[in-house]
Amino acid sequence: MNQLYSSKLLENVVCEFSKLPGIGKKTALRMALHLLKQDEDSVRQFGQALIQLRSEVMYCRECHNLSDTEVCEICINPRRNHSIVCVVETVRDVMSIENTMQYQGIYHVLGGVISPMDGIGPADLNMDSLVRKAAAGTVSEVILALSATMEGDTTNFYIYRKIKNDTVMVSTLARGLSVGDELEYADQVTLGRSIINRMPFESAFHNK
Amino acid sequence: MNQLYSSKLLENVVCEFSKLPGIGKKTALRMALHLLKQDEDSVRQFGQALIQLRSEVMYCRECHNLSDTEVCEICINPRRNHSIVCVVETVRDVMSIENTMQYQGIYHVLGGVISPMDGIGPADLNMDSLVRKAAAGTVSEVILALSATMEGDTTNFYIYRKIKNDTVMVSTLARGLSVGDELEYADQVTLGRSIINRMPFESAFHNK
Repeated sequence: MNQLYSSKLLENVVCEFSKLPGIGKKTALRMALHLLKQDEDSVRQFGQALIQLRSEVMYCRECHNLSDTEVCEICINPRRNHSIVCVVETVRDVMSIENTMQYQGIYHVLGGVISPMDGIGPADLNMDSLVRKAAAGTVSEVILALSATMEGDTTNFYIYRKIKNDTVMVSTLARGLSVGDELEYADQVTLGRSIINRMPFESAFHNK
Repeated sequence: MNQLYSSKLLENVVCEFSKLPGIGKKTALRMALHLLKQDEDSVRQFGQALIQLRSEVMYCRECHNLSDTEVCEICINPRRNHSIVCVVETVRDVMSIENTMQYQGIYHVLGGVISPMDGIGPADLNMDSLVRKAAAGTVSEVILALSATMEGDTTNFYIYRKIKNDTVMVSTLARGLSVGDELEYADQVTLGRSIINRMPFESAFHNK
């Protein structure tokens, strides 16, 4: 049954909030009533932040990451290693890797993976610019950091064939046990791979 | 550790979303990225709905319910029974009762309950207007629909003493087993009250 609102303005906001992923009508109402208790300036700031985000945010010309400027902070930073390119699916993956503080190269955001089932081919992704980047001669390594799914593997293989040449090394993320995992609960495939790809103890120790 | 955002605009929106009740940074980010995928007009509409809600919504002069007009739709409706007033804590309770479709009177939103622990006294609530309303001679019944807590009971008693007169009947919501409850799992106090306040079978049957 539909909720009855005494205010059309309230109903609008509840309706807008409930369009967000994972937000139902009840949570949306709670949010709207919460905003009513805030002072007018901070609600105005909230509304304007939303509008501004959508109208002003850009995708970096170089790596297609979200950016406030034409070229993003990472691509423009001279202290980053521009000869290593990490290929990821989404801007969210960039954030995840940045948060590890373990990577100093630059990125290339594909915008998804090749998925014939969903009708997504190479032409729907930021593929051409990646191929051009790799062919330009300034890149020494391309790290494929896509999902470990069938579509991810397909895309990895597609990229590998497109960009592999004598100057570019193509690598992929290490697969193995998560840090903190207990052997007993690890899945067979991961455990199997972690045995095949076992590494010298010294280097594992060094990375800790 | 703080998330690193490549866009200040994105960070603003994530920060605003995460001020909402029950929303953490991860959910806020998911919402912000979701909005980026929507078209610009609908995001603008969202932002403006928020701003408009906070700046334009009013509290009904009569009952203190949320309203787009000076007097709310319920108070202005001539088909509602203006001689019965249901006293509730919040605008949310009005919605809950309206949703039952079982009530045809008008409301009075107190804005809370008397709670000395939180420093809330009768003067902090919409109490005077209720007392005036009850004394005006047009009201025949006041239904107390406050929470079944100690604070709610205190407030009920306070209101009762203030408004009780020869023309106004003061009633309160029925307490008893919830519809669908099993006896085995009902709490003792509720079960005890439902025995003391037992009702003729015919009227229980009639209300179904």
